[in-house]
Amino acid sequence: MADLPKGFRAAGVAAGIKKNGNPDLALIVSDSDCKAAAVFTSNKVKAAPVIYDQRIMSTHADKLRAVVINAGCANACTGEQGLRNVEETAALVAAALSERARPESDGGADAAEAQPPKTFAMLEPAQVFVMSTGVIGVQLPMDRMRDGIPSVVAALSDDGLEDVARAIMTTDTRPKTASAELSVSAKGGTVSDKGSSVLVCGLAKGAGMIHPNMATLLSVVMTDAVIDLPTLQRATKRATDRSFNRISVDGDTSTNDTLLVLANGASGITVDENEFEIMLTSVCIDLAKQIVRDGEGATKLISIHVSGAKDERMAEHIGRTIARSPLVKTAFYGEDANWGRIVMAAGYSGEDVDPNKMSLWFGGVHVLANGAPTPYDEADATRAIQSRDVEVKLDLGLGDASATVWTCDLSHDYVTINGKYRT
Amino acid sequence: MADLPKGFRAAGVAAGIKKNGNPDLALIVSDSDCKAAAVFTSNKVKAAPVIYDQRIMSTHADKLRAVVINAGCANACTGEQGLRNVEETAALVAAALSERARPESDGGADAAEAQPPKTFAMLEPAQVFVMSTGVIGVQLPMDRMRDGIPSVVAALSDDGLEDVARAIMTTDTRPKTASAELSVSAKGGTVSDKGSSVLVCGLAKGAGMIHPNMATLLSVVMTDAVIDLPTLQRATKRATDRSFNRISVDGDTSTNDTLLVLANGASGITVDENEFEIMLTSVCIDLAKQIVRDGEGATKLISIHVSGAKDERMAEHIGRTIARSPLVKTAFYGEDANWGRIVMAAGYSGEDVDPNKMSLWFGGVHVLANGAPTPYDEADATRAIQSRDVEVKLDLGLGDASATVWTCDLSHDYVTINGKYRT
Repeated sequence: MADLPKGFRAAGVAAGIKKNGNPDLALIVSDSDCKAAAVFTSNKVKAAPVIYDQRIMSTHADKLRAVVINAGCANACTGEQGLRNVEETAALVAAALSERARPESDGGADAAEAQPPKTFAMLEPAQVFVMSTGVIGVQLPMDRMRDGIPSVVAALSDDGLEDVARAIMTTDTRPKTASAELSVSAKGGTVSDKGSSVLVCGLAKGAGMIHPNMATLLSVVMTDAVIDLPTLQRATKRATDRSFNRISVDGDTSTNDTLLVLANGASGITVDENEFEIMLTSVCIDLAKQIVRDGEGATKLISIHVSGAKDERMAEHIGRTIARSPLVKTAFYGEDANWGRIVMAAGYSGEDVDPNKMSLWFGGVHVLANGAPTPYDEADATRAIQSRDVEVKLDLGLGDASATVWTCDLSHDYVTINGKYRT
Repeated sequence: MADLPKGFRAAGVAAGIKKNGNPDLALIVSDSDCKAAAVFTSNKVKAAPVIYDQRIMSTHADKLRAVVINAGCANACTGEQGLRNVEETAALVAAALSERARPESDGGADAAEAQPPKTFAMLEPAQVFVMSTGVIGVQLPMDRMRDGIPSVVAALSDDGLEDVARAIMTTDTRPKTASAELSVSAKGGTVSDKGSSVLVCGLAKGAGMIHPNMATLLSVVMTDAVIDLPTLQRATKRATDRSFNRISVDGDTSTNDTLLVLANGASGITVDENEFEIMLTSVCIDLAKQIVRDGEGATKLISIHVSGAKDERMAEHIGRTIARSPLVKTAFYGEDANWGRIVMAAGYSGEDVDPNKMSLWFGGVHVLANGAPTPYDEADATRAIQSRDVEVKLDLGLGDASATVWTCDLSHDYVTINGKYRT
């Protein structure tokens, strides 16, 4: 389990929002103001926390301090009351953290010295980002939130990363974290007194769902790098485009999908934009692939490499169309090396492909060359997809651009999880 | 089983293209030239027969005489050889029909009088439309075609409609035909000596697939109405837009999808454009709904009525997005009245919806009013979807336009049929 970057603490507790008693309330706090960049769902039906977060990001993106996340209730399709509940949640967190700044009433001078309370006096509610995942159309149980928030504040610790990753799970079968470290001395940079490395560390949930609703992708990535806001925003956009925007579980887009990247500068080390973007992208791709691998009912992680495209957008669009096709996904589940379905999906992508220039490989097995089947051995092609990790390469023969997209297979369990879980 | 319109004959035989020995070669012939309108797949990867048909429709749309259809081989991704095989197929049909014009060598004058051979002397190959459905990436078995075409010509009869519908089935579980009749005398029109009614009669296959491939929608609609070519083309486009273009089984678009409408004028009755369009649309909707109901693994036909849209295009697009969502489709399979997923799908359609104006009904149960859940009884909502025919109504609250889209549920059997059929 990865460490948190310097200056971040985190916790996850059970607040009784999930009916099964599992952890369901998480908090991440930075000791100092963070620069923040966020990417939100493109769904026109946005959950109340998304509406709230978009508002605070327009005014407080350079001074976020905390992220509170609940599972078990998406707070979507909840109208004005839903929005008031988000605001109250942020205010409760701000107040609970501010209270920690008061002298401990039950501890002497020694106790206070051993565990100095972090000072969050004057924390504004708008410095608290809110995320929710779970049931749609149900109001957030504010009584549970009012009880839970002081508990999760009390549980904050330097090694709470996995607790957060666990508390935000819905039908995820395992917590998802990833990290990347840049050692500055090895690169000949200036080593400050705060340390010699920069850490980028993230957690995510996704591809899970909860009674009775939909998959939501939530992710928070933290770094102690010193970085300015426009650079952070650009890097976040580009990293998202090459990671979370290139995965597909079922093609459905949730009301709550949110990625938040926080940079508190606690390492004292300034990284250049390119270095930071590479670290951030690698963490996001790692998390994105974990989400696909843990997709509902998934038995395989399928990497679809589209090359020979006129531009990267074309490669990505064709990859996404293939990744979304139920016929492609069921064929992989059945371990049927059915290349016709992949060509078909490329053909209906709307892109200007030329069927006579397409070539296709399953793993190392070349099955289609310039639009015509090769004399490949069916058993070889089948073997190439009988793995938990399947590689598909489609060359369009039109240009030099490429993109990789990740998807999972469509299994009986997907149908069971999404159709029958009420019964 | 509907009759064929006047002047059409049809047959379906087993030519050995399907491995299971079922009928797989069908022929429809008109005794006189037909006006013809066709709609083809939008897939950039077009099967050889689609490429051929598009070519002959640019030159012979006012004089088609026959349609030959095979199941068991899609003739897609088959390169130049595939195209040559289509051309040979059309030539074989033209020749076999032309031969029928010769005096029968094994019959005397009486036999010839009892069963007069139809005269097709001088039939051009380009008057023969070709359709295929089945395996991708495999060449059409021309030896079977050469043997089969004389057999299917010999089997032509006035009541061969169901034989055609059966011969073009792949994983369809039942043949699909539909018809509409317009009685002219009842409308005060002029009754010609050829009869008093106009018949529109169609057949289709779809939502089936065959080892190892994809669903293909094929449909032929015939009429004995007198109609000019531009009117037929306009009516066909509009009827398609409200029928076959409003159904979804899995969102995949095949390389072979084709609808052909033939009008031979044999009734001698001219119908006005509006009357004809209504008949044609009703036949196409009937066939389209049969395809969805027989969708792979489908247990329900789900009618999604989207109203309150700014225009019909918006209503249709939102309906289609909902119809395609795996989360929506699995919820219906599980008989889970999960309205959040429908609102979510409307939200990610890309259309400019307002979540606070949406209202939703399952059957007669109002579950969402202006973006907020109603105090409905969950048991009532569940009951409303525990039927083979489910009605969903989504009102967007933005305007007066509406559209209806049809889909089926996503079941365990869909995954089995499309994933495991090789094993």
